Amino acid sequence: MTYGTTFPLWRAAAPDWDAYTRAPFVQALADGSLPRASFLTYLAQDYVFLIHFSRAWALATAKAGTIGEMRACAATVHALLQTETRLHVGICAEAGISEEALLATVEAPQNLAYTRYVLEAGYSGDFLDLLAALMPCVLGYGEIGARLMREGHDPAYAAWIEAYGGSDYQALCHDAAALLDGAIARRLGPGAPSIPRWTELAGRFATATRLEAAFWTLAA
Amino acid sequence: MTYGTTFPLWRAAAPDWDAYTRAPFVQALADGSLPRASFLTYLAQDYVFLIHFSRAWALATAKAGTIGEMRACAATVHALLQTETRLHVGICAEAGISEEALLATVEAPQNLAYTRYVLEAGYSGDFLDLLAALMPCVLGYGEIGARLMREGHDPAYAAWIEAYGGSDYQALCHDAAALLDGAIARRLGPGAPSIPRWTELAGRFATATRLEAAFWTLAA
Amino acid sequence: MTYGTTFPLWRAAAPDWDAYTRAPFVQALADGSLPRASFLTYLAQDYVFLIHFSRAWALATAKAGTIGEMRACAATVHALLQTETRLHVGICAEAGISEEALLATVEAPQNLAYTRYVLEAGYSGDFLDLLAALMPCVLGYGEIGARLMREGHDPAYAAWIEAYGGSDYQALCHDAAALLDGAIARRLGPGAPSIPRWTELAGRFATATRLEAAFWTLAA
Amino acid sequence: MTYGTTFPLWRAAAPDWDAYTRAPFVQALADGSLPRASFLTYLAQDYVFLIHFSRAWALATAKAGTIGEMRACAATVHALLQTETRLHVGICAEAGISEEALLATVEAPQNLAYTRYVLEAGYSGDFLDLLAALMPCVLGYGEIGARLMREGHDPAYAAWIEAYGGSDYQALCHDAAALLDGAIARRLGPGAPSIPRWTELAGRFATATRLEAAFWTLAA
Repeated sequence: MTYGTTFPLWRAAAPDWDAYTRAPFVQALADGSLPRASFLTYLAQDYVFLIHFSRAWALATAKAGTIGEMRACAATVHALLQTETRLHVGICAEAGISEEALLATVEAPQNLAYTRYVLEAGYSGDFLDLLAALMPCVLGYGEIGARLMREGHDPAYAAWIEAYGGSDYQALCHDAAALLDGAIARRLGPGAPSIPRWTELAGRFATATRLEAAFWTLAA
Repeated sequence: MTYGTTFPLWRAAAPDWDAYTRAPFVQALADGSLPRASFLTYLAQDYVFLIHFSRAWALATAKAGTIGEMRACAATVHALLQTETRLHVGICAEAGISEEALLATVEAPQNLAYTRYVLEAGYSGDFLDLLAALMPCVLGYGEIGARLMREGHDPAYAAWIEAYGGSDYQALCHDAAALLDGAIARRLGPGAPSIPRWTELAGRFATATRLEAAFWTLAA
Repeated sequence: MTYGTTFPLWRAAAPDWDAYTRAPFVQALADGSLPRASFLTYLAQDYVFLIHFSRAWALATAKAGTIGEMRACAATVHALLQTETRLHVGICAEAGISEEALLATVEAPQNLAYTRYVLEAGYSGDFLDLLAALMPCVLGYGEIGARLMREGHDPAYAAWIEAYGGSDYQALCHDAAALLDGAIARRLGPGAPSIPRWTELAGRFATATRLEAAFWTLAA
Repeated sequence: MTYGTTFPLWRAAAPDWDAYTRAPFVQALADGSLPRASFLTYLAQDYVFLIHFSRAWALATAKAGTIGEMRACAATVHALLQTETRLHVGICAEAGISEEALLATVEAPQNLAYTRYVLEAGYSGDFLDLLAALMPCVLGYGEIGARLMREGHDPAYAAWIEAYGGSDYQALCHDAAALLDGAIARRLGPGAPSIPRWTELAGRFATATRLEAAFWTLAA
């Protein structure tokens, strides 16, 4: 199972895809061996991440080319800022991390590297550059969640795994892939994979994947 | 009646404020003398305007400094793209302008000048520059609507007048003014009006006001 | 005579190209009938224009994809800020307009519309969007200058005509066209004209041309 | 000895300043114990860095507020792209690294983190945010160079030390500090240090310093 038609091609060309989606951190989430402290460190960093991720989708809304693209991106911003970030605060609260503590989190270099790479790709490039840099996060988490659901996992981190492997997030991944496929077709046409721009975008995707792989190490 | 504490000061320093809010077009909306064809020209241009206006609020979401600011801006984007633009399409459909016709509208220079000024102010400046350029539109329409409701008006364009003079839009204006006041306080502190940056921002507001005044002439 | 291979195709698809390059203002420059006051109004606006034009080329430097593209754009910024703007100040001084007066010029809406359109195209789009929006100015002035040199002209505004029709500016136009052609080839490949992106870029060029045509009216 | 009036205050508030300017890598450059291979790794990464650094100064040119600020930033871009990058290619060639090898360098995460942080600060913020993020690099290298010249050093890496400790680079540091001081005064006025914006900018400077400290570890 995969998402859309562009993503599988870019994934195949990203040398660090497995290092990202099969990272030791992911494996330890699956078998329950991940220390609780590591998970909490990850959660706090992920909250800061979500804020910059929301900013990146907002930038995508500003740089979109059609009202349909704008609505798709804005819906993501809305979901992130109104639902996801609040859920995150709730999960962290249960784990004993207050919202104040979350907001005071010092951004790890790996966190900063990925989010600023994405935002800068969007500002310096166009809508496609931004999508290419965003997709490893959106679709990689979907792939990880779906795989762990399929392969079975320890109950310790079941909530996290089910959040990304569950049908809501999987539907969101299909929508994101459709947004990407449509955006590529609308700009580069049916021969997209043979245009130099395609290679450039696949390179953006590969660099973002490398930075996502590094992200897990912030809580190792 | 006015909105917040920053806006009245900037308004007082904008030489074209009356040329904008008391333009012949506005007066003709109030007394019902505006030709229907002019109103339809305005509506079609305003649809294109709304798209760029949504993009500007999305950019504001990306450039905001706190999660509260982000949520306020994203809520505006959401309202514009999910509600306002659809309402607009409905009003235009009733008036005999199809969505295809709307999307095919050639942007008038006055339309283009204002929206690109706002977006460029946002990209080249910071969150405050963007808000300063957005406010003449948001709050000027609120002021016009409230005044015409108060002073009475011909029924011909009552729907338009009541949309901006009504309590929903008026509440939105108070929220926007609070967003502006908070954003200024958070960055420039209590002595804001005596800082050079204030004058620069008031200049942005004045230029945007001048361009809003010119906007009405596109349907004259 | 023309410049490069992309420009003639985009020019042919821009409905306002003749309205721009054969505007009454241009004709009046050629036959010497342009009132001196109109020329001075134009000169002062053009000084403000040059500043935003320099900013746009600086943005292009930031958004370029290769060090060669960066150097080409940066050389233009350097020429504009170190030479062109100073020359302009000199010409205006001779004409009795001080640098203070120049800096105090209130930007005409037509000036503002074009420069902000260019800058926003660059920020919201990518390097190609920015070049597409810049080219009508760079190459249109070259075409006007070359044509007036060829067709003969009254001595009244010979200095202006020779500046743009002369070999230095003509060489600059050939360089700019080569930058554009290379940038297109590097990103869109040999089949560029059949890719949807091409049509989008030609549309940017056409809108910028329309705004350049309107620019002349600020001093009419 | 120091540079300007803003920098010493921000430096004092940046917890990682010493970790950056007195990093083991710097110490090993001074006493000559740095392995040649580490220095070459650093040089290749620094070439990629210079390209993004040039882009950041170009963005600063686009976001500047006065023609004087624009000229100061553009002069830096010009020096970086016409002189510095070519010198760098020369030094690397002597060390046996071809320009092709330089251009093929895979950007280290630490390199990417700093340059994208700077560029994103500039795009999302304003001219001051961009300067605040650039200064740790410009002035930190100046401080390191001046200190090592003063304290004495092994001849092994004398060329590097003299490049940054020499009078040309030191003059450039004084100019950059004057640009910063002027830009702050022009926007925030004489009471700048008591405005919330100042704290925000000092935070940008501190984060950039943290990322500069991490930069050295890429060649450790």
